[in-house]
Amino acid sequence: MCSPCIMAEVDRVIADRRRFLKTAAGSCAAVAGIGSASVASTAVLDPASAQRPPTSFTRTVDLTHTLRPDFPAWFAEGQVIMGRTAPASLTEVDEFVIDAETPFALKKVSYWEHVGTHVDAANHCSAGGKSVDEIPADELVAPLVVIDMRKEAADDPLAQVTPEHVRRWEAAHGPLPPRCFVAMNSGWAEKAGDPKAFFCADESDGGGASRQPAFHPDTARMLLEDREVVGIGVDTLSFDNSRSNGLDVHLIWLPENRWGVENLNDLSKVPEAGATIVVGAPKFKGGTGGPARVLALL
Amino acid sequence: MCSPCIMAEVDRVIADRRRFLKTAAGSCAAVAGIGSASVASTAVLDPASAQRPPTSFTRTVDLTHTLRPDFPAWFAEGQVIMGRTAPASLTEVDEFVIDAETPFALKKVSYWEHVGTHVDAANHCSAGGKSVDEIPADELVAPLVVIDMRKEAADDPLAQVTPEHVRRWEAAHGPLPPRCFVAMNSGWAEKAGDPKAFFCADESDGGGASRQPAFHPDTARMLLEDREVVGIGVDTLSFDNSRSNGLDVHLIWLPENRWGVENLNDLSKVPEAGATIVVGAPKFKGGTGGPARVLALL
Repeated sequence: MCSPCIMAEVDRVIADRRRFLKTAAGSCAAVAGIGSASVASTAVLDPASAQRPPTSFTRTVDLTHTLRPDFPAWFAEGQVIMGRTAPASLTEVDEFVIDAETPFALKKVSYWEHVGTHVDAANHCSAGGKSVDEIPADELVAPLVVIDMRKEAADDPLAQVTPEHVRRWEAAHGPLPPRCFVAMNSGWAEKAGDPKAFFCADESDGGGASRQPAFHPDTARMLLEDREVVGIGVDTLSFDNSRSNGLDVHLIWLPENRWGVENLNDLSKVPEAGATIVVGAPKFKGGTGGPARVLALL
Repeated sequence: MCSPCIMAEVDRVIADRRRFLKTAAGSCAAVAGIGSASVASTAVLDPASAQRPPTSFTRTVDLTHTLRPDFPAWFAEGQVIMGRTAPASLTEVDEFVIDAETPFALKKVSYWEHVGTHVDAANHCSAGGKSVDEIPADELVAPLVVIDMRKEAADDPLAQVTPEHVRRWEAAHGPLPPRCFVAMNSGWAEKAGDPKAFFCADESDGGGASRQPAFHPDTARMLLEDREVVGIGVDTLSFDNSRSNGLDVHLIWLPENRWGVENLNDLSKVPEAGATIVVGAPKFKGGTGGPARVLALL
């Protein structure tokens, strides 16, 4: 399709989407009573588009980092503890190993939920939001949109995915597919073996501020209000960096009962358009997220 | 296809499979030196069949139980601990909750690896076997074969999936697809809300012996030697029950660098043939298995 044709199609789809959102928000307000519709008044996902056309694939790409106790993380120590490999300070950590008396091996595992390649659920940043086990299973299988930010991120570690980047993707590939997952590929996944490079807090930013590529808050608003997106993803530690106050994107996106994935791996191995992401979110009751196995089907 | 035609096709495919296994085992022994091929001498998966024909789907079914601290499990207490909902005995368990000072919620989670809907990796029962992070990603997406054992299991809680059950499936649906996942649907998942019914140890069986439907050891051998199967699954706590000494199927299947899933849910919502299973195995380095999000694509 030529670029002008694609943009005309983008405009048409977005106009339809805005009409749906307006109607849905109106119905929602009417049912809930004015002022009491606390969630999703401008961000309803169209249930009709959960019915997908057939999706086809022939192979699998793994988008998950191997989770090790030394994987770069927010807290310095004790992020992930597995059996007897763990620091001795946690006395209840234990492990069975195979020996003459024990025919099986089994470890006790302990971690903070938001480690490695992991899901952020809505309740991570909103007291009434859906927990990780409440994310509808059909949202976990979604068309994968990859925004290539590798050049910008190489020049500027605080590069942000802006609405313009989304529009450029659409100019090349057409409108964002309904109920898609939008991922930033900044090339940061390759730094995961070097915690200092991956998680580079800089005292000049106020200490502990996250210096890595991320989403811009305007993009979170755009994807909520003008597109139909179930989840967002980054190949860094956070959807936010210090330019978005470390948490603005989280506070725009998650309270609308949306979710996302941080620390994605190997996004360079999948195309910008056409793949399907499968997010193996943990199903722990009440969890605010947690390590997930994330695969792409091509 | 008529039943005799299907069985002729089954015979042809099995003959091919046996020829491949014989050749592969010979090559393996030649490379490794006689006597040193410790794994998979009779159970090599054909790498060529990792190239699949296109698989198509339109919807998702969740095959995962919600994991709660009281989910039926092998050990009585402390299986799964999440934040402040945990017993106070584990002093290091903690949790952030959203309040005026903290804009995010986050829990520390602790569990024994084999809880809820979970993977058993090869190293669960073989010291040199692949750990859960080493299972090839392309094995985690597989044609799903469901053996319906609900009638037998209703009559006999120690019912086993025998080679005859597999042959009956093939008579109805054709040869097991290459690199498939074979799951038992015993109806046991519906008992998960009632730990006594789900996990019914019976002192008359020797105490602690597992009284629930399972695989027969001969079926594990058949699926290793005469079919091409990446993983097996059950909707009960174990591949084994007391009729297979509580562990025989594990000790046949896992040391051949195969894996499986226990505590599958909702297998009655997927067809006996034609669906694809996606096993979101945890990717914890060196893990012997662990809670997984398991989805079916239809």
